Amino acid sequence: MTSPAVAFARQNYSSFLDDLKALLRIPSISTLPEHKDDCRRAAESLAVELKRIGMDNARLIDTECHPLVYADWLHATGKPTVLIYAHYDVQPPDPLDEWLSPPFEPTERDGNLYARGAVDDKGQLVAQLKALESLLATAGALPVNVRVLFEGEEEVGGEGIARFVASGPPELHSDFALVSDTELFAPGLPTLCVGLRGMIYTEIEVRGARADLHSGMYGGAAPNPFIALAQILARLKDEDGRILIPGFYDGIIPPSAEELAAWRSLPFDEEQYRINEVGSRQLVGEPGYSVLERTWARPTLDVHGMPGGFTGEGAKTVIPARATAKVSMRLVPGMTTAKAFDLYKDYVARIAPLGVEVAVRLIHSGEPCLISVDNPYVKAATAALREVWGRETVFIRSGGSIPIVGDFARYLGIPSVMMGFGLPDDNLHAPNEKFHLKNFALGIESIVLFLEEAGR
Amino acid sequence: MTSPAVAFARQNYSSFLDDLKALLRIPSISTLPEHKDDCRRAAESLAVELKRIGMDNARLIDTECHPLVYADWLHATGKPTVLIYAHYDVQPPDPLDEWLSPPFEPTERDGNLYARGAVDDKGQLVAQLKALESLLATAGALPVNVRVLFEGEEEVGGEGIARFVASGPPELHSDFALVSDTELFAPGLPTLCVGLRGMIYTEIEVRGARADLHSGMYGGAAPNPFIALAQILARLKDEDGRILIPGFYDGIIPPSAEELAAWRSLPFDEEQYRINEVGSRQLVGEPGYSVLERTWARPTLDVHGMPGGFTGEGAKTVIPARATAKVSMRLVPGMTTAKAFDLYKDYVARIAPLGVEVAVRLIHSGEPCLISVDNPYVKAATAALREVWGRETVFIRSGGSIPIVGDFARYLGIPSVMMGFGLPDDNLHAPNEKFHLKNFALGIESIVLFLEEAGR
Repeated sequence: MTSPAVAFARQNYSSFLDDLKALLRIPSISTLPEHKDDCRRAAESLAVELKRIGMDNARLIDTECHPLVYADWLHATGKPTVLIYAHYDVQPPDPLDEWLSPPFEPTERDGNLYARGAVDDKGQLVAQLKALESLLATAGALPVNVRVLFEGEEEVGGEGIARFVASGPPELHSDFALVSDTELFAPGLPTLCVGLRGMIYTEIEVRGARADLHSGMYGGAAPNPFIALAQILARLKDEDGRILIPGFYDGIIPPSAEELAAWRSLPFDEEQYRINEVGSRQLVGEPGYSVLERTWARPTLDVHGMPGGFTGEGAKTVIPARATAKVSMRLVPGMTTAKAFDLYKDYVARIAPLGVEVAVRLIHSGEPCLISVDNPYVKAATAALREVWGRETVFIRSGGSIPIVGDFARYLGIPSVMMGFGLPDDNLHAPNEKFHLKNFALGIESIVLFLEEAGR
Repeated sequence: MTSPAVAFARQNYSSFLDDLKALLRIPSISTLPEHKDDCRRAAESLAVELKRIGMDNARLIDTECHPLVYADWLHATGKPTVLIYAHYDVQPPDPLDEWLSPPFEPTERDGNLYARGAVDDKGQLVAQLKALESLLATAGALPVNVRVLFEGEEEVGGEGIARFVASGPPELHSDFALVSDTELFAPGLPTLCVGLRGMIYTEIEVRGARADLHSGMYGGAAPNPFIALAQILARLKDEDGRILIPGFYDGIIPPSAEELAAWRSLPFDEEQYRINEVGSRQLVGEPGYSVLERTWARPTLDVHGMPGGFTGEGAKTVIPARATAKVSMRLVPGMTTAKAFDLYKDYVARIAPLGVEVAVRLIHSGEPCLISVDNPYVKAATAALREVWGRETVFIRSGGSIPIVGDFARYLGIPSVMMGFGLPDDNLHAPNEKFHLKNFALGIESIVLFLEEAGR
C-alpha cells in the first residue's frame, strides 16, 4: 500500500516544483558580500515555509555571517529524533557566459531543472521540506521527532553552524542526522554516502615590489609574484599528481580490502567517466590508484584561481606588486586539517623564492569523516530506498567535504545518514547546474519512507 | 639670448598645463574596448589642436583599431624634415584603489602632475605640441619641416601604425624622427636613449576538463589548468632569473666594453634602486650581470596576470575548465621576435603536462633596436639639451620597447632621436603615475631648441 504521504507528494508535485523554483530565484551566493541580503531573504522564506507546513519554533538563528534556519516538531513520544540538515546558500554562478539559461531563472529542459543551486543544495533541501509537508498534511503528525537546521554558509566553510554545533545547544539533541547534499552513484541507483574527504582552503599571497612596475623598465631586476607563485605551486604537486609536502601522506588510513572490492563492483568505467563527466584529454592523478580511490580516498591539491595583475583583454606590461593563489587540499581519514595546514604552511615558507614575501592564509577547513554502516538509521534508509527505487543501496564515499557531518559526530555524538539525490553529471559548482526532476520527486518519497521506517 | 619661442613657452606655461590636463581627463585606454570612443575623442582633440597652432593637413588616419593623428608643416625649404612621434593612448589604471587621486582627474602635488598618462605619454606629447606652438606663434614658421604622427595603440602593440609605416607612405618621408616616450636617467640629467629592448607579448591558454568541475568530486582525477600553467611557467624561468627555453640566448650581441664602462659611470646605486624604485626585499635576475645590464641588455620573461577560475573574495571550490597566463619576453639586439616566439611556442608545447591542451598566442611584438650616436640629429639634440639643462647628455638604453623606432629605421630608413623627460620614479604603468612639472616645462624648451639646432 502506498503511503498516504507519498500519494500526497505525487498529487502536489507541480506546486512543490514551483516552490523549489521560487527558492532558486533568490541568488543566495554566500561568498559574495553583495548577496548578503539575498541569503537572509532565502533564510526568511524557509522559516515562513516551515511554519506554514506545521513545524514548531520556526526561526532564524543569527551567526556572524548568514543565518541558520531552525524548526522542530517533537510530539512523537518514544520515537527517535532526527536532525535534518541541508543548506540554502549557493556557489557564485561565474563564468556567466557559459550558462545556457540564466543561473537564477530556473529552467526546465529534457527532464532536468537548470539553475545555480538546483542540486547543491536547494533541490535537496526542498525535497526534505516537502517530505515533512506531505507527512504532516496527511497524518497531522510526523513518525519521528524532527529538528530542522538549514545553513547558509556551506559554500564558504560553514563557520556559523560549526560554532553553533560545537556549543552543543539543547535544540540539537538528536539521535541521528539526515544530510541531503550528496548524489546517487549512477542514475536509478540508490546510494548512501559513508565517507567524506576533509579539506583546507587557503590563499598564498606573494608580494614583490612595493607597487606595480613596468615590465620593460624593471623586467630582469624586480621579482615577479606570479613567477614566484608558479615556482611554489610546481613544488607543491608533481606532474604525477603527487603532493610534495613532506609528511603530508603520513598516517593516512587506506580503505579496507572489503571496501575496495565493493568499489570495484560499482558500475563505473574510467574511460566513460573521462569522456562524459570530465571531458579532458586524459585523467590525471597518482599512478597505482583507481579513479574512485584517487577521488574518494586519496588527498589532492587544487588551484582555484590566481587573482592579481592584469586579467583583461589584450596586453598590459605590468609586473604586479602582488599575486595570490587560491589553493585547497582535500584530506582523507587519518589526516587532520591542523596538521595538514601546518605542514603546508611550513613547506611553502621554506620553498619561497628569493626576493618575495609569502603569506599563507587558511580560509576554511573541515575534517575528513567516515560513517559506520552498522546503525539502525542506515538500515531504515536502505529499506526506504529499496522500496522507492526497487534496488539495493550501494555504499560509496564522496570526494567532497561536508564538514558538518564530522561536527555532528564530534559534538552531538550522532551518526549522519547522507542520503542525497544528485547525479554525477549535475554540474555542481559549474555552469548549467541542474537537478534531475525525477530525482526530486523520488527524493521526496525516499525521505518520507525513511522517516516512516525510522519511526517504526 | 633666449629664443623667442622659449620665452613664449615660459609666458604661456600655465595655459599649456591646462591643455595637458584636458587631454589627461580623457580615459583613452587603448586595451579596453569600452574606451574606444575615448581614444577617438583624444585623437580628434589633437587634430583640432594641431590645426589651431598652424599645422597643415591635420587629420585622423583610421586604422583597424584607434586612429593615428597626422599633420605637417613643410615650408622650410632646404631644411631637413623631422617626423615627430608620441602616443595618446594610456595603460588601464587598475588597481584603482591604490591611486591617491583619481587617475583621470589630473592633480598637482609637490611639483608633480598625477594622472594616468601623465608621463606615458600625454605629458611628452603635449610638450612636443607646445614646442611647435611656441615656434609657430613667435616666428610664424618652423625651423625645419615637420611631420607629426601621434598614435593611439602604443600600449596594445601599435599594429595600426606599424602597418601604416611599413607601407612607406609619402606622408612619412623624413630625415629623422623625434620620439618622446623615454626618461631622464636621473633628475636634471639630460638623457638620450639609444637602445630599446624588443618584446613578444603572449598568452598561454590551458584547457583541462570540458566545464568547470567541483574540486571535491573531481580533485585527483581532473586536470587543473592552473597547476599545469604553474608547471609550465616554472620551467620557463628558473629561480636565478635564467630563461630555460633552449636556444633563447643564442646570437645575443652584448654591449661593447666602452658602453659598459659608460654605464658603470652613471649615477646609479643598485641598493638605492632596490629601496627607492622597486621596494622589494631583494632584486632578482641573472647572476653575473649588473642591474643596468639585466634591464637594458639581457632578455627577460614576466607574467602579467593569470585570468580564469575564481578570483573573488572567499572560497569557491572549482577546478576551472581553463586558465590563461599572460606572459611577455623582452628581447635584446641579436634576437628577433619571430625566432624567440617560435622557440618559446615549441618549448611550451613540449613541456605541456599530460591531460591538458595548451595553446600559445602572440598578442603583439616589437623588435629590439640600437641607434648609432654618430648622426647630426643626435648632435643637435645634445647641443639643445646642454643649453637647457646645463649638462652633458648621457646615452643610455631602455629596457622598455618602442617598436615604432625599429619600424622607422626599417621602413623609412631614418634614425630616431629618443628625447624623453620622464623620471625613473614616475610610476609608469602603475598607480599614481606622474610627470614632474619642471620636466614638462624644460621638455618644451628642449624640443624648441632641438628643432632650432636641427634647422641651422
